[in-house]
Amino acid sequence: MTAQRGVVSITIRDVAQAAGVSTATVSRALRGLPHVDPETRERVRRVAAEMDYVVSPSASRLASGRTGTVAVITPFIDRWFFSTVLSGISDVLQESDVDLLVYEVGDPATSPGLPAERRLRGRVDGVIVVTLPTDAPRIADLLEIGLPASFIGVRWPGVPSVCIDDAAAARMATQHLINLGHERVGILSGRPQASTSQAARARGYTEAMKGAGLEPEEAAYGYFTVAGGESAMTSLLSQPRPPTAVFAMSDDMAFGAIRALQRHGIRPGVDIAIASIDGHDLSELLDLTTVGQPVEQMGRMAAHALLDRMLGRDNPDAGDPDAGEIAVPTTLVVRGSTVPVERTTSLG
Amino acid sequence: MTAQRGVVSITIRDVAQAAGVSTATVSRALRGLPHVDPETRERVRRVAAEMDYVVSPSASRLASGRTGTVAVITPFIDRWFFSTVLSGISDVLQESDVDLLVYEVGDPATSPGLPAERRLRGRVDGVIVVTLPTDAPRIADLLEIGLPASFIGVRWPGVPSVCIDDAAAARMATQHLINLGHERVGILSGRPQASTSQAARARGYTEAMKGAGLEPEEAAYGYFTVAGGESAMTSLLSQPRPPTAVFAMSDDMAFGAIRALQRHGIRPGVDIAIASIDGHDLSELLDLTTVGQPVEQMGRMAAHALLDRMLGRDNPDAGDPDAGEIAVPTTLVVRGSTVPVERTTSLG
Repeated sequence: MTAQRGVVSITIRDVAQAAGVSTATVSRALRGLPHVDPETRERVRRVAAEMDYVVSPSASRLASGRTGTVAVITPFIDRWFFSTVLSGISDVLQESDVDLLVYEVGDPATSPGLPAERRLRGRVDGVIVVTLPTDAPRIADLLEIGLPASFIGVRWPGVPSVCIDDAAAARMATQHLINLGHERVGILSGRPQASTSQAARARGYTEAMKGAGLEPEEAAYGYFTVAGGESAMTSLLSQPRPPTAVFAMSDDMAFGAIRALQRHGIRPGVDIAIASIDGHDLSELLDLTTVGQPVEQMGRMAAHALLDRMLGRDNPDAGDPDAGEIAVPTTLVVRGSTVPVERTTSLG
Repeated sequence: MTAQRGVVSITIRDVAQAAGVSTATVSRALRGLPHVDPETRERVRRVAAEMDYVVSPSASRLASGRTGTVAVITPFIDRWFFSTVLSGISDVLQESDVDLLVYEVGDPATSPGLPAERRLRGRVDGVIVVTLPTDAPRIADLLEIGLPASFIGVRWPGVPSVCIDDAAAARMATQHLINLGHERVGILSGRPQASTSQAARARGYTEAMKGAGLEPEEAAYGYFTVAGGESAMTSLLSQPRPPTAVFAMSDDMAFGAIRALQRHGIRPGVDIAIASIDGHDLSELLDLTTVGQPVEQMGRMAAHALLDRMLGRDNPDAGDPDAGEIAVPTTLVVRGSTVPVERTTSLG
């Protein structure tokens, strides 16, 4: 509990301590997010009510004496994943009367461009970083300014980070193909060593293959885009004996793979099975099996985590040791692009 | 020419006057944009060089004593058209070292929500408004603050506005279907009276039909979304004698129409022809004939127009009478979704 200008102000940490749970659990329980068992949720709600703690950030408190603005640093604005994340963030910030500054920094592997400190210092109250690799130049500098932060798809000690379990998602997609009887399952990947989530997806694929006693295939590399998936699939198809199934690291890559197949007169879901990760808006239309992630919700969660941090800043023992990964669940959605191996036409 | 603090500063208007062209032409000529004949371009460049005028906004000049920030007001962040426009705007602002504030105001027909004046006044140097209807509540109020503005897809007296010719685009798509021999061409529209560009597209469709001596069909209404197109197409298919071809007002609507056809076991491009407007990233993958608009470029042009206005603000005779529509060209891209009528299977 912290006393300010004579007012005793209850923070989320006080509620967490009183209820004997982490601040993340308090936040989730009070917001009705998943992964809190009903008993804990009930206890947290009771404690919060007793302490007169309200989770919803008060606009006046957030805005007073501050910039009332949050920066989002994202590689792209116009790709499905990123625009959907941004929309989720925007919703939550608007509910709290906070403005949204967007810095589109470009492909982290080719572009230096995080915003300079001077653009952030004194101009924003917090920062949300979307899927930049942890070794991106200047992420550490950014955090050293001391701004509250939350991350999406990036893990960093002491910073709340909204992530799917990338390895588990890749295992799920690959295992599904294996369960359909496929033994030669190819993999369409982003560029080598591009990001930690890509590395985790590659690991999940390899684990599923090895777990089934199968030989992982050499990855075909592209970009996390339609064009990248198309070129990676094209190179797989140039092999003497292409796989009967393919795991693509993203739906956009799978869309590109479908285009490559169409250009070769090969029918996706008939001649070759495809599964990927994302749950893109148009995956249903393209009849694509995919491991869906709740992308807009991930944006909302990262914004809530940041607002909590911003509200907790007055707390002298800030720097929440509990802050860390906020895991979000994924779901396999099976569609026409994945069929049992006996129904695929061997191209070998 | 305006004298400020003892420095004579050349504005785009001075160059325009000296070259005998509009400021828009100066801007286009110096940026290498289309629609300037080579001779004019050469003359503008020579005059600008003589006057020592550089079109690229100087960061220091834009930033000095100002917020260094521009607001974009857009109905959506996460739909293809809007995220692509935003990305184009972001590119140009970054080149000029200007920050981007994004206000996602929701569907203008159902949501009141333009940002309050207090959020803009003193916080931003200019505003870009994306495809809000001109009768949206408070657009006029916004302009009355006196902030420089540019619009995309909205025409407003005295405000530079980047627009395609919606009627012409719709005529082109419809005429293409008519030229393939289709006489019963349906139309999938957004909701009745939703926006001026929708009204113009409806007009273009009707003109093409009447011009060919054909009876325009009753519009099937939906939203400008995949789901909207699906429901509109479904209602067309419930008619006793559905059309042999359909003009959809947007690619997203066409995608939804394709889904509706698939659900009915009807093959797009085989049983029914479809053409639409947009040039969506995934239209090629879905083999959709579409009238493409240069969406990212439209974002870039609106940002350039706004920066010019911001630079011209010191000019005592601001309020450029030439400011108005900046027309951008569209191109019909013919793909497998449109086939001659003799090749479609009559569903009637």
